Amino acid sequence: MKNILDQVNSPDDIKKMNVDNLKDLSKEIRKYLIESVSKTGGHLASNLGVTELTLALHYVFNSPVDKIIWDVGHQSYIHKIITGRKDKMSTLRQFGGMSGFPKREESEHDIFNTGHSSTSISAAIGIARGRDLRKQQHEVIAVIGDGALTGGMAFEALNDAGRSNTKLIVVLNDNEMSISHNVGGMSQYLSKIRTEPAYYTTKKDIEKLVNQIPFIGDELRNLLHKTKEGIKQMIVPGMLFEEIGLKYLGPIDGHNIEALIDVFKRAKNQDGPILIHVCTKKGKGYKLAEEKPDAFHGISPFDPKTGKKRDCKKGPTYSKIFGNKLCNLAKNNKNLAVITAAMIDGTGLTDFAQKYPERLFDVGIAEQHAVTMAAGLAVEGIVPVVALYSSFLQRAYDQVIHDVAMQNLHVVFAIDRAGLVGDDGETHHGVFDAAFLSQIPNMTVMVPADYIELENMLDYAVNKHNGPIAVRYPRGNCEENFMTSSSQINYGKGVLVQEGNDISIITNGRMTHIALKVKKLLQKYNISAEIINLRFIKPLDEELILSSYDKTKNVVIIDEAIKDGSISNKIQLLLPADANIRIETLPNKFISHGSVEKLFEDNFIDEISITNNIIKDLKK
Amino acid sequence: MKNILDQVNSPDDIKKMNVDNLKDLSKEIRKYLIESVSKTGGHLASNLGVTELTLALHYVFNSPVDKIIWDVGHQSYIHKIITGRKDKMSTLRQFGGMSGFPKREESEHDIFNTGHSSTSISAAIGIARGRDLRKQQHEVIAVIGDGALTGGMAFEALNDAGRSNTKLIVVLNDNEMSISHNVGGMSQYLSKIRTEPAYYTTKKDIEKLVNQIPFIGDELRNLLHKTKEGIKQMIVPGMLFEEIGLKYLGPIDGHNIEALIDVFKRAKNQDGPILIHVCTKKGKGYKLAEEKPDAFHGISPFDPKTGKKRDCKKGPTYSKIFGNKLCNLAKNNKNLAVITAAMIDGTGLTDFAQKYPERLFDVGIAEQHAVTMAAGLAVEGIVPVVALYSSFLQRAYDQVIHDVAMQNLHVVFAIDRAGLVGDDGETHHGVFDAAFLSQIPNMTVMVPADYIELENMLDYAVNKHNGPIAVRYPRGNCEENFMTSSSQINYGKGVLVQEGNDISIITNGRMTHIALKVKKLLQKYNISAEIINLRFIKPLDEELILSSYDKTKNVVIIDEAIKDGSISNKIQLLLPADANIRIETLPNKFISHGSVEKLFEDNFIDEISITNNIIKDLKK
Repeated sequence: MKNILDQVNSPDDIKKMNVDNLKDLSKEIRKYLIESVSKTGGHLASNLGVTELTLALHYVFNSPVDKIIWDVGHQSYIHKIITGRKDKMSTLRQFGGMSGFPKREESEHDIFNTGHSSTSISAAIGIARGRDLRKQQHEVIAVIGDGALTGGMAFEALNDAGRSNTKLIVVLNDNEMSISHNVGGMSQYLSKIRTEPAYYTTKKDIEKLVNQIPFIGDELRNLLHKTKEGIKQMIVPGMLFEEIGLKYLGPIDGHNIEALIDVFKRAKNQDGPILIHVCTKKGKGYKLAEEKPDAFHGISPFDPKTGKKRDCKKGPTYSKIFGNKLCNLAKNNKNLAVITAAMIDGTGLTDFAQKYPERLFDVGIAEQHAVTMAAGLAVEGIVPVVALYSSFLQRAYDQVIHDVAMQNLHVVFAIDRAGLVGDDGETHHGVFDAAFLSQIPNMTVMVPADYIELENMLDYAVNKHNGPIAVRYPRGNCEENFMTSSSQINYGKGVLVQEGNDISIITNGRMTHIALKVKKLLQKYNISAEIINLRFIKPLDEELILSSYDKTKNVVIIDEAIKDGSISNKIQLLLPADANIRIETLPNKFISHGSVEKLFEDNFIDEISITNNIIKDLKK
Repeated sequence: MKNILDQVNSPDDIKKMNVDNLKDLSKEIRKYLIESVSKTGGHLASNLGVTELTLALHYVFNSPVDKIIWDVGHQSYIHKIITGRKDKMSTLRQFGGMSGFPKREESEHDIFNTGHSSTSISAAIGIARGRDLRKQQHEVIAVIGDGALTGGMAFEALNDAGRSNTKLIVVLNDNEMSISHNVGGMSQYLSKIRTEPAYYTTKKDIEKLVNQIPFIGDELRNLLHKTKEGIKQMIVPGMLFEEIGLKYLGPIDGHNIEALIDVFKRAKNQDGPILIHVCTKKGKGYKLAEEKPDAFHGISPFDPKTGKKRDCKKGPTYSKIFGNKLCNLAKNNKNLAVITAAMIDGTGLTDFAQKYPERLFDVGIAEQHAVTMAAGLAVEGIVPVVALYSSFLQRAYDQVIHDVAMQNLHVVFAIDRAGLVGDDGETHHGVFDAAFLSQIPNMTVMVPADYIELENMLDYAVNKHNGPIAVRYPRGNCEENFMTSSSQINYGKGVLVQEGNDISIITNGRMTHIALKVKKLLQKYNISAEIINLRFIKPLDEELILSSYDKTKNVVIIDEAIKDGSISNKIQLLLPADANIRIETLPNKFISHGSVEKLFEDNFIDEISITNNIIKDLKK
């Protein structure tokens, strides 16, 4: 077999190739990608889907002079491979290795860091306007999925682009998926364009057609005859985009490299904002991924032949426990409903969606709308549970304050991926929610230390509380359940997990497990640690903290939150001025990717680091 | 003159009237509104514009069983007048009086509190879905302006509504304005529908037309002949909305009460999500406001005959100083650009817009896009200044973290309306930004105590700093400038404003003026206060704080921020454990409307309260 990929060290090497070379290269890249990601884990299906698209972009445009911005960015692997980072694929998403997202510090070809959805068009307009102000000449291209297009800020950007005369190319990578299948009116609209063959005609053809209207009455009339829908679509597919001011080109078969090169060249020669509608298949070229693109979205290491995960962790995840408990709560509470933002599977709601479809609202990638919609449900007497990842809840900060907390509405926030998430890195760590939620008046914030506590907290939040309340829990598995965790949840009350005499470890959530390990290690030094699991980080159980301090006179606070938003400040202020206090939190900085265990170590909140620090302190 | 308004105490009284009565009532209401708002101040132009719309809604629908949600909500005065709150208009926006926005605690007719833009459709879908789950029967109506439609979350909601079968009515109040004139592709689109008379035909007529297509070739062909634009629009006006799944009715003359009643009745009889496009004129019926709707958007008390403000405060505002300084900086720094979100006038950028139109980007009500677009400009070497109101910056919380701070880009945030804003109340107070910005890694936060400091800080932020930096300043006027404020701005350095021996007042921003008054009051008790203006709330000038403490051994911290996000915690932790510290901040709760002075008093951060507390403390 020819080995073309070996010869590709920069986009210049792509530009020298002919279409047949590029087709062969696509095959090799897919093979390399499957092999590589099967070892490291990562995002596979989305990258397989953009193989030809990425090659065609780098063939026509001149990166890094021309600027390509990848929305979300987990589909940038091929871009990374052909911009000199092929050999780093083996370190993908590992601590100290290559990020799974574009990173400016990694390469001059990574123009703008992404991670969260729907930012690329905004960034691209900014870059294009900067170019114009500085009288530079280069192209700016945003590549955005149809899923990301449901995010409101993408619309804000299209709306702004539409009235500008700024040259800008938006490549709409339409695979009918975000992570799961897309929802929403826009998605239906794109689907119509895709699926009816009559629409597979380019704008150019249509303009020709329209120009000839008075004469070619027959052809037009036949089409008009079909359906009313047909009429609208026939005249201009993508009219929705045209109406707000972008030139529409497409739809284009995203696996036809000649067609892609052709449309990109055409776009290059036109002025103003342009939208190119490219239709791709997620998982393309790898049968298993084509059939189950969800399963190959973000995947851990797997056997490329069977698709089976190599390292199948035992037992359920926090997400799964959440989903199961919600089904249980829904059975007994007819007024419970759940809202998710394109994350039915990710948040563990697959079963719920099947059992209670009428009470599950998947609003697409639209966190702002999700939260305010929940406030609307609450006004009508429904108990809404909003299931979002911590870092994506940041998008709805204003809505949590303005629409939920200010009206003191009973909305339950189920915050998945709270704390460090590992491989996805800085854009996805859930390290701000504890801080920002705790500052919002009327808000209550709970953190379960294990599955039983999660279940009990959900029950408490749905059935016993009134007003806004959040339950925040980590990505992945819980090691084990405690005896103490099954005790009743009472507002603002923590729990004494293990008694001790020499030092009080005050903590919450999964850090309770670290505390237990620290206690064991300390025993070797004849130090007896007491462990307090606060359960509520707002409000704090001041009584419990003070009574434990009175006993031990030494305190260590362990909190998986950035220091400036941690509970440590409040506890420090609560305790007497002369108290001996050690604080173990995450630092006030952005934290990179790597396994959670490695990141705990690197930030000194693992059991060894904490134990060593405590021993040093107590020896003083 | 007949006095119909006197007979209106609830929406039932509207329902009894005939169209002629309603027309007369419109006139009376306008007169009452102008008189009333001329005395209290408030939002006038937007309310004048929705007079007929509000009456028609209450005529056709049965509030509060049918739910009407007012987007933004400053156009709800007429709704308030006819739902039993006519007599409270004299207390509008005053402390303890009626809010200028819908408030659930005020009336059962106020279904959902609003204040920020673009939330109403989300709330309405939530309420409609709640209705369906609870098997209730009632209508849900969201009234949203075309300005608010540029906010991304409105699009998220339309997209969700479009694919649902939920009955829901969205009334698009199209007055071609947000606060200033609208921008963006959507706005141009609506304008096309409005302005070309051919489009003034209802959906019904068009469907008839389309059904007859094969036969009425002439009529259609003549139209097709006109322009390509014409073709698209002619077939279905509002097709953009139809494409994403909403039935479109309109456009309707929003001052023709019969037409409004007719279209609302028609909407009532249809299923699924419906959008009614109503065209109104801001300021309608009051010549001065029709001519200058901007000036009569939010206005202080004025003479209804001349339109002139009664109480014209002397001197410029912080906003004005900001705008002037930006013009000055732009002259010397060709790479400076400014971004605003539909707030050119409000943020003081009117002159800048005239002098440097190519460097001012008004993106519409789209704060998320504004911030990420700025990040894009920064990547291209431009120094972007993002001018937003504090409470609206909450919308872009994720973008500040994810797109600016994480990439450590040089973006300047000019945060107007930081701190308490007064009459607009809880939704508009800028009391969260200090807290959330200070927690974001890489971010620097400054607070000017007067105009000179604002100017110097802007110069510092634009020309001497690198990385994300915020300057936050209050609404309205500054009392006076200090001698000390003209000294150079150095990173993280505060300034000693006045020396003293007995107590250190550590403060920032306009609270420095309160501190000066406190110092004067304390002199009567022979207490000598030292005043530290921190200038930077992140990072803090620890050296200056400690050296002043070493001198006085007593500290009072005055900070116009909610306690949980105030600098007081950090300063407390910095000072020795046995330090005598008094903390004067805003409480951890939402603060209502009223004059800023009254709100300071009510929350005990006025000079009298603070002085009394200090005296009590020192006597101990």
